[in-house]
Amino acid sequence: MSFAMREVVLLNARGKKWRIPVGEGLRTVRGVGQLKTDGLERLVGHSLEVGGRTYAVLEPSVRDQIETIHRKAQIIGPKDGAYLAFHTDLGAGDTVVEGGAGSGALTIALAHAVAPTGRVVSYEIRPDFLDVARANVEEAGYGDVAQFREKDITQGIEERDVQAVVLDLPEPWTALQVAKRALQPSGHFASYSPTVEQMRETVLALREEAFAEVWSVELLERRMEVGRGSRPAFQMLGHTGYMTFARRMVSA
Amino acid sequence: MSFAMREVVLLNARGKKWRIPVGEGLRTVRGVGQLKTDGLERLVGHSLEVGGRTYAVLEPSVRDQIETIHRKAQIIGPKDGAYLAFHTDLGAGDTVVEGGAGSGALTIALAHAVAPTGRVVSYEIRPDFLDVARANVEEAGYGDVAQFREKDITQGIEERDVQAVVLDLPEPWTALQVAKRALQPSGHFASYSPTVEQMRETVLALREEAFAEVWSVELLERRMEVGRGSRPAFQMLGHTGYMTFARRMVSA
Amino acid sequence: MSFAMREVVLLNARGKKWRIPVGEGLRTVRGVGQLKTDGLERLVGHSLEVGGRTYAVLEPSVRDQIETIHRKAQIIGPKDGAYLAFHTDLGAGDTVVEGGAGSGALTIALAHAVAPTGRVVSYEIRPDFLDVARANVEEAGYGDVAQFREKDITQGIEERDVQAVVLDLPEPWTALQVAKRALQPSGHFASYSPTVEQMRETVLALREEAFAEVWSVELLERRMEVGRGSRPAFQMLGHTGYMTFARRMVSA
Amino acid sequence: MSFAMREVVLLNARGKKWRIPVGEGLRTVRGVGQLKTDGLERLVGHSLEVGGRTYAVLEPSVRDQIETIHRKAQIIGPKDGAYLAFHTDLGAGDTVVEGGAGSGALTIALAHAVAPTGRVVSYEIRPDFLDVARANVEEAGYGDVAQFREKDITQGIEERDVQAVVLDLPEPWTALQVAKRALQPSGHFASYSPTVEQMRETVLALREEAFAEVWSVELLERRMEVGRGSRPAFQMLGHTGYMTFARRMVSA
Repeated sequence: MSFAMREVVLLNARGKKWRIPVGEGLRTVRGVGQLKTDGLERLVGHSLEVGGRTYAVLEPSVRDQIETIHRKAQIIGPKDGAYLAFHTDLGAGDTVVEGGAGSGALTIALAHAVAPTGRVVSYEIRPDFLDVARANVEEAGYGDVAQFREKDITQGIEERDVQAVVLDLPEPWTALQVAKRALQPSGHFASYSPTVEQMRETVLALREEAFAEVWSVELLERRMEVGRGSRPAFQMLGHTGYMTFARRMVSA
Repeated sequence: MSFAMREVVLLNARGKKWRIPVGEGLRTVRGVGQLKTDGLERLVGHSLEVGGRTYAVLEPSVRDQIETIHRKAQIIGPKDGAYLAFHTDLGAGDTVVEGGAGSGALTIALAHAVAPTGRVVSYEIRPDFLDVARANVEEAGYGDVAQFREKDITQGIEERDVQAVVLDLPEPWTALQVAKRALQPSGHFASYSPTVEQMRETVLALREEAFAEVWSVELLERRMEVGRGSRPAFQMLGHTGYMTFARRMVSA
Repeated sequence: MSFAMREVVLLNARGKKWRIPVGEGLRTVRGVGQLKTDGLERLVGHSLEVGGRTYAVLEPSVRDQIETIHRKAQIIGPKDGAYLAFHTDLGAGDTVVEGGAGSGALTIALAHAVAPTGRVVSYEIRPDFLDVARANVEEAGYGDVAQFREKDITQGIEERDVQAVVLDLPEPWTALQVAKRALQPSGHFASYSPTVEQMRETVLALREEAFAEVWSVELLERRMEVGRGSRPAFQMLGHTGYMTFARRMVSA
Repeated sequence: MSFAMREVVLLNARGKKWRIPVGEGLRTVRGVGQLKTDGLERLVGHSLEVGGRTYAVLEPSVRDQIETIHRKAQIIGPKDGAYLAFHTDLGAGDTVVEGGAGSGALTIALAHAVAPTGRVVSYEIRPDFLDVARANVEEAGYGDVAQFREKDITQGIEERDVQAVVLDLPEPWTALQVAKRALQPSGHFASYSPTVEQMRETVLALREEAFAEVWSVELLERRMEVGRGSRPAFQMLGHTGYMTFARRMVSA
């Protein structure tokens, strides 16, 4: 992270995390207690005792930021966010359009990938989502990278020649035409959908629109536990969503 | 991608890819045939016919680069590479140390994450691996971002205050002490290992060294196929490796 | 197995299996060579050398029988066959109706579950499948347990008050009405389908027909390999089919 | 099921099940309320209203029995129980030895497979487990099929020439010698263990003892949900245990 540290993460022994703003004097944090936040950034990498309990003080990673986000709805987590950003080839300086800001979790993952010189333009029709997303993204330090438009993305994308369009919409296929116009030649399309039917309809529409390399995938994340013996965790998230990818071809 | 395009990818209808250098005149490509490579970059996003077959011409993505790498041994693929880069919080400008360059596949994923202003320093003891990795990384356009050292990483890391250390070694636990010294406070440690025993020993050693937030995970990637009906692909890679993460704490 | 042994299995060091009829004199087996088959049943549990290679001689298990079946089409393997037989509560003496005999693999699993006193009645419209299925089932020793009808199951099931109806049909929902009439109160319905759409349509039709406890599931089988280290196998079957279960209720 | 029905299952709209003894007059069932149990078996396949709520009345299946068992500890569920019984080739009339009765869940699955003419002999050292297992098995109607021995199985198995030995022990490798003596030639060994280390040690010991066809596997069960769209369930059991199989060879 290249920016000044404005927050730290407190991590307890059981893996629970709290994000704490730095330099805001004495604060009471629910579940932790009262602590001095001035100079907390100098404790990064050290242990801190608050109310008789010990916490590791960490610099917030993009994963920490996503995991501790204020949620308005189901979010796209680090597993899928990392995959989407990488498989749309996003790097520093790129421009990516996001359709459906949700709570801003994916916005953060995308912003992280294109920061500090790139740009995420996020379209969202629901003002309540927009407020939450904007606050979350700013809190994560990506306020300069991400830009929000209160607009229905299916009605048009203002940007042109963008590197990638990433959709988290109930009906992503309704945004293919506008995505196509916004994308640079061979630019990356991606879509995230919880159900098989959404995935299917998106794939069929992408083929119809002559996108190249249309493919769909889901990721399963399996934690391993190391105690007296080693084994996969009993707890596991059974499903998040299907990710569909394609590359924009210039129509003949 | 911000650099000038030096290669394109040809993609056939069955999903097979060829990376073709641009501006090298008439070339014969095995499996494709003879084609003119001058001006190929202007065909990106269009179809190209060679020898009666049609190809999509694409700008190489980091995924394309990894998938078409010259392999000296088993590589860390895009699925795990993306996860490792993201979960070690790598972004533009960061410095990351890699232990074990292998064929350079992970080096490319890491370089992609920190480019153009960051740096990957890759330690590798085998000169033959080093040659392959360096060639692959240069071909992928990350020659300026990645730096190679023909050195046993367990003998010491020259860099200090790095954002992350990522290991692909048979015995990652032998490099924990040097990783600890190289990492900035709360910096990210990651390790990739095919077997449960390697994962376990790494986890136990990390706990011993008082790293924080030690956890292990594996990712399963499941392709979906959309034909007359929709279903997961019959073909699937059953296992790649376990990824272990931790954050460096400053010893008391 | 309670019957006289009519076949043995030869297993080589790499896990390949051959089923060999017993008491048929000198035989040449492709991939093995020439061997005497008289008295082979007395070698069960011992090693046998043929042509300089060593084989374990085993009594054929139901799994061996299914894995070495003559295939006319994709079969339902031991993983799903075992699950279907168990979750339809089949035991010795039960009657089960099968819709779609295929190559007889599932017929064998079902026959194994209800043998020796129960009965599998298998409906199949394609005479070529019927011939293969009947031969496979007889070879497996279940000729007396299974009974075949060259008939379209959607046109009617002759049996009444059966314990279970198990379907492997492209459109299982077309057979729900006849299944309902054949099943005893609270009897078990099961269906096997490769695609999500087939699964869905079956589930919706079962709800429509007021079946109770309608549920769908898929099973993933992951082999573990134990060498210098332990890990899941790289090779894995990514998908077989969805299994849908329900219990027949007597309409109000 | 060939026995007289002594219990029914009540199933509510949310999938919760209660096993209700039949013919015991007016009973109060926690979570259901008061109901008459005389003649309940004649309501099988019908709906029943109790206290304003509707239940489906079902004949208990082996899966119902296992799912509603009184648990003393973690049980082996229907998924793994079905797989173990099938892959040890158990059928009516077979004798199987079980090492570690636990709460009797696996005992029920095995008894179901060999009933009514076969036999499960279950060894268990802990008297408290034995009491629970015996009660559960009797309640499930397999009191005549299963037989319990309060004995350490590693100290010896009385039975000879059994079809299968199935172990659910912390250290299954300590029982290999006695298993070998009890098994018929080419008989089936199986073991269930939660951790990779237990699985590994069992596999190595089986190889050492020259068992044939030694293999290990885990099963993942993924429920599918059919609502407005279709998708895998968000809830999923991440791990149960590894199953290891082998066939007994007669030592040279």
